[in-house]
Amino acid sequence: MFKNTLKCLVKIDKNVHSRPNSNVAFIGLGQMGTRMVNNLIKHGKQPRVYDVVPSAVSSIKGAIPCSSAEEAVDGANIIITMLPNGQIVKDTVIGQKGILKKIGKNSLLLDSSTTGPQVARELYQAAKESSVRFLDAPVSGGVVGAQAGTLCFMVGGDEGDCKEVEPVLLHMGAKVLFCGDSGAGQITKLCNNLILGVTMIGTAEAMNLGVKLGLDPKLLSDVVNISTGRSWSSDTYNPVPGVMENVPSAKNYDGGFSVELIAKDLGLAGDAALSISAPVPLAAMSHQLFRTMITYGLGKKDFSVIYKFLEGKAVDN
Amino acid sequence: MFKNTLKCLVKIDKNVHSRPNSNVAFIGLGQMGTRMVNNLIKHGKQPRVYDVVPSAVSSIKGAIPCSSAEEAVDGANIIITMLPNGQIVKDTVIGQKGILKKIGKNSLLLDSSTTGPQVARELYQAAKESSVRFLDAPVSGGVVGAQAGTLCFMVGGDEGDCKEVEPVLLHMGAKVLFCGDSGAGQITKLCNNLILGVTMIGTAEAMNLGVKLGLDPKLLSDVVNISTGRSWSSDTYNPVPGVMENVPSAKNYDGGFSVELIAKDLGLAGDAALSISAPVPLAAMSHQLFRTMITYGLGKKDFSVIYKFLEGKAVDN
Amino acid sequence: MFKNTLKCLVKIDKNVHSRPNSNVAFIGLGQMGTRMVNNLIKHGKQPRVYDVVPSAVSSIKGAIPCSSAEEAVDGANIIITMLPNGQIVKDTVIGQKGILKKIGKNSLLLDSSTTGPQVARELYQAAKESSVRFLDAPVSGGVVGAQAGTLCFMVGGDEGDCKEVEPVLLHMGAKVLFCGDSGAGQITKLCNNLILGVTMIGTAEAMNLGVKLGLDPKLLSDVVNISTGRSWSSDTYNPVPGVMENVPSAKNYDGGFSVELIAKDLGLAGDAALSISAPVPLAAMSHQLFRTMITYGLGKKDFSVIYKFLEGKAVDN
Amino acid sequence: MFKNTLKCLVKIDKNVHSRPNSNVAFIGLGQMGTRMVNNLIKHGKQPRVYDVVPSAVSSIKGAIPCSSAEEAVDGANIIITMLPNGQIVKDTVIGQKGILKKIGKNSLLLDSSTTGPQVARELYQAAKESSVRFLDAPVSGGVVGAQAGTLCFMVGGDEGDCKEVEPVLLHMGAKVLFCGDSGAGQITKLCNNLILGVTMIGTAEAMNLGVKLGLDPKLLSDVVNISTGRSWSSDTYNPVPGVMENVPSAKNYDGGFSVELIAKDLGLAGDAALSISAPVPLAAMSHQLFRTMITYGLGKKDFSVIYKFLEGKAVDN
Repeated sequence: MFKNTLKCLVKIDKNVHSRPNSNVAFIGLGQMGTRMVNNLIKHGKQPRVYDVVPSAVSSIKGAIPCSSAEEAVDGANIIITMLPNGQIVKDTVIGQKGILKKIGKNSLLLDSSTTGPQVARELYQAAKESSVRFLDAPVSGGVVGAQAGTLCFMVGGDEGDCKEVEPVLLHMGAKVLFCGDSGAGQITKLCNNLILGVTMIGTAEAMNLGVKLGLDPKLLSDVVNISTGRSWSSDTYNPVPGVMENVPSAKNYDGGFSVELIAKDLGLAGDAALSISAPVPLAAMSHQLFRTMITYGLGKKDFSVIYKFLEGKAVDN
Repeated sequence: MFKNTLKCLVKIDKNVHSRPNSNVAFIGLGQMGTRMVNNLIKHGKQPRVYDVVPSAVSSIKGAIPCSSAEEAVDGANIIITMLPNGQIVKDTVIGQKGILKKIGKNSLLLDSSTTGPQVARELYQAAKESSVRFLDAPVSGGVVGAQAGTLCFMVGGDEGDCKEVEPVLLHMGAKVLFCGDSGAGQITKLCNNLILGVTMIGTAEAMNLGVKLGLDPKLLSDVVNISTGRSWSSDTYNPVPGVMENVPSAKNYDGGFSVELIAKDLGLAGDAALSISAPVPLAAMSHQLFRTMITYGLGKKDFSVIYKFLEGKAVDN
Repeated sequence: MFKNTLKCLVKIDKNVHSRPNSNVAFIGLGQMGTRMVNNLIKHGKQPRVYDVVPSAVSSIKGAIPCSSAEEAVDGANIIITMLPNGQIVKDTVIGQKGILKKIGKNSLLLDSSTTGPQVARELYQAAKESSVRFLDAPVSGGVVGAQAGTLCFMVGGDEGDCKEVEPVLLHMGAKVLFCGDSGAGQITKLCNNLILGVTMIGTAEAMNLGVKLGLDPKLLSDVVNISTGRSWSSDTYNPVPGVMENVPSAKNYDGGFSVELIAKDLGLAGDAALSISAPVPLAAMSHQLFRTMITYGLGKKDFSVIYKFLEGKAVDN
Repeated sequence: MFKNTLKCLVKIDKNVHSRPNSNVAFIGLGQMGTRMVNNLIKHGKQPRVYDVVPSAVSSIKGAIPCSSAEEAVDGANIIITMLPNGQIVKDTVIGQKGILKKIGKNSLLLDSSTTGPQVARELYQAAKESSVRFLDAPVSGGVVGAQAGTLCFMVGGDEGDCKEVEPVLLHMGAKVLFCGDSGAGQITKLCNNLILGVTMIGTAEAMNLGVKLGLDPKLLSDVVNISTGRSWSSDTYNPVPGVMENVPSAKNYDGGFSVELIAKDLGLAGDAALSISAPVPLAAMSHQLFRTMITYGLGKKDFSVIYKFLEGKAVDN
């Protein structure tokens, strides 16, 4: 049903300007949201911001601090949410004190949280009934990408709305990919991260095997990277300490994309698969492995720590 | 223990000439061997060839047909074997009628079969005791690479021997990668193919999930290919019919790298992992999935047929 | 938190009488519900019955047919629901036309559907706010147990309520097990069925392995049944045709406990595990295997058909 | 091919006497062998014993100590081996200093080691060529059963030979099960232990899930044990501390059947499955889980420690 081609792929022209008169509200100032807002400010925006944690609101310079979500959306015609999970997004938008009824007609509500397609479609429908336009626009790139303004937005909803909001998104990211109807952004992100989780574990298994059998990990990576085993997990984010610089495996697996987050995404992918009876055996097993690692206190580490877990050295202290 | 750097990486200068006085014997004229021999002949060699199937021997033009392995190695100083599995290699080299005792002192025996490291090291040792030099040199690239002369040789043994035989190998392939001590070629190949098997299944799971949820497979592939889910399995060998041309998924999964062969390699990788207690959970599960597919009559299809298997449409007729 | 002992274990005195003045309503007349209602009638009850399918209602002799759920609960002080899944139970009880507001104060609402603990606790809470008592009481025993009146009820909620409704339940089943606070009946059922699904597949793997290696399946089962591999799956419900009589494997895997239902229960167990970060690797893999079997058209067969699936003969026509 | 019925099932008449003139040799005096030999002595035998560890030989009272395997078999007409693995058995029997050529014609060689069917059949064949009769007779019951004389022997080979040696075996065990042709004892043991490994993990997953969700483990076990989840792993060897007495889970998982041994058996089962293309997905995953536990230093603990591993508390110190 999403027979679109990848139309607005890879925009990096940072000189694109958004409508000068767009008023942006931003709700959710965690690790990601704070950085995204700061990039909006850098590009001349003065967003209305809100978070349940007051200090998160007050610490941002150049924004208009608000003391409630309702206050934040007041007068805004673009509202962006960046929240921990689908339930919180639903509570925030369509809950008892939900912002939807406060949002002006024809405004654009864009959710960058990772929620799965079900929540996205539910919100799209609710928004439509309130004459509000809704886009699901989860991101990849993590905290590093949010900081650098190089996030990739995967967008589902109406293509015209995507085009319209694109200049604003490009203040925070490097790519805006229109993926199809409502929910398509969420599905695309889950599919990508399903592959990511599985491929990283496979790569870690092979690296651990090769190294234990005496191979030099750098040499093995070099060969894999010009062969059929090549992937982002081996050539850009290698899980073995010493093979690459500036990746989590070079920094005690701190920073990066946490085990908890990949586990969350694999869980959402599993739910989505369940809803349509699609078998995902390796994703299910990967989900279990990452969850076992959480049980062992590795939830906050970068997910490439699976290499250490397989090595038997991740859980000593 | 194999702390070498990847020295002889990516040689594509096809003008390199091997020693004019090298006499090559080639044993094993299956799908791979026949094509490799033909490329040797194209480059001016006249190899002595043998196979247990007489018609395989007689059908090659430009080679010296031999009626036994012993006859083939007579007078050869480079002997190449390309056989179905490790047991057959062992029988051929050190069995009761094994060729090792017929090979001249200081000759070079190179095995391009996929056998696992154990067999490679055993043969290296036996060869050494007979003053014969031995290299394990399994290949990637499959029948297509063998035909085109673009195979990649992963070599274990003594580096000087690798350098010496490299010109001959480059008649049959595009790359010669020295990986380390005896067995290192085998280990490298198994590690690469472990990743390959796991990544292909993960990619197929995500593609099936996305398509069943309404995404266009081409668009999903395009996004994945510029994202963290990118891999050879998605950007070069996509398993979904219609996404790419000239790959097995475009041709009813005929040709390519068979389910039987990836299952064999994952089995060897599992054995190697067992020998050193390295956990390989996803590889083990992938192995089981491919073996289940063999049980359902898909053993000869290209391994990307896992997409069809997950879709529930591979096993109807 | 459920530190109770198994107090009302195994009641089989069928002469126990329920309060003569109890008025029972029964909502949900599928395969299970119809048979349960018939057993109530046999024991002298005249339940008020409702189902969304009118013919299901009219075909029951001896009950009071109702044309809506609201009508069914009118005047009843014990209300039993037996519905396909948690969403339908929630819609029926607390949805827009939900029965909860029509149920008399202090009445007892008992849900025998398998819904998972979350739904049970939500309904318990909602019921409490309406001064209605709520028990979760999923059953094991299947269609056969429902027909014979030998179901096992696993009950969560307040123990006094369990005791009170026990005589009514024993008209439909042979055992009433009080498991603890609200949700405990659901959890107990999911835990039991998790083991069941995993053990059945493990048993089928071993039987298929042994038989393919030449063992007689009856002899192998006999040995397993007096050894450490013994389980209900091998000694009472053996998956290999010819080993036992009167089990689904003796009848082309028709009847019994369907692949769809065990897959549903493993899915609910997985959700519950997710909610508390408990790793369930084999359950997850079993879930995937059963779901793959559904993809291949085996969803309605008894779940012991996994034996045939592993054998490679389940999916031919 | 092994269409025998379970003829000699469950012999416990300990007054059965073996041929008074049988001379027994016993090779392999580890944890199992020493205890088995002591039971032979208790029943009036004076076996000729040997082990590669001299102190193991000298510490047995009432046996005839020998300084080599060859010396041990000298004059014996029943030779029993109990060794760590198939390779050692092969070395001992048909290796360069193998005992086979020293064993008298028509004597009976019985191997109680767990080796897999391949080794058993190889030895049967070799023995036959030397006019020696061979039985594979692996045991279940572990160190506890060896101590108490309650082992169960699973025997493959010629049924007459099984009958003949039965009285001697019943000095060391409580059951002698004739399973079929050569190798059938090994296959039977592997099949049983495959189920055992899978079922124990499934049981541990469910128990951990239930307990984390608030159920009392004793109550949950009681329900499972009268339901479809019942198995030896739950009703006889429960993995949760506090549920049963006198099982490893009650004693810090010391003693019992080690993780290393179940991993070994699952590995052999996997090899056997590979040889005939039988899919064993849960066994493969179980194998990986037990091997991961070895990596974390739990190899010597009883295999029911999987409960602690899933709980996330097995690997702290």
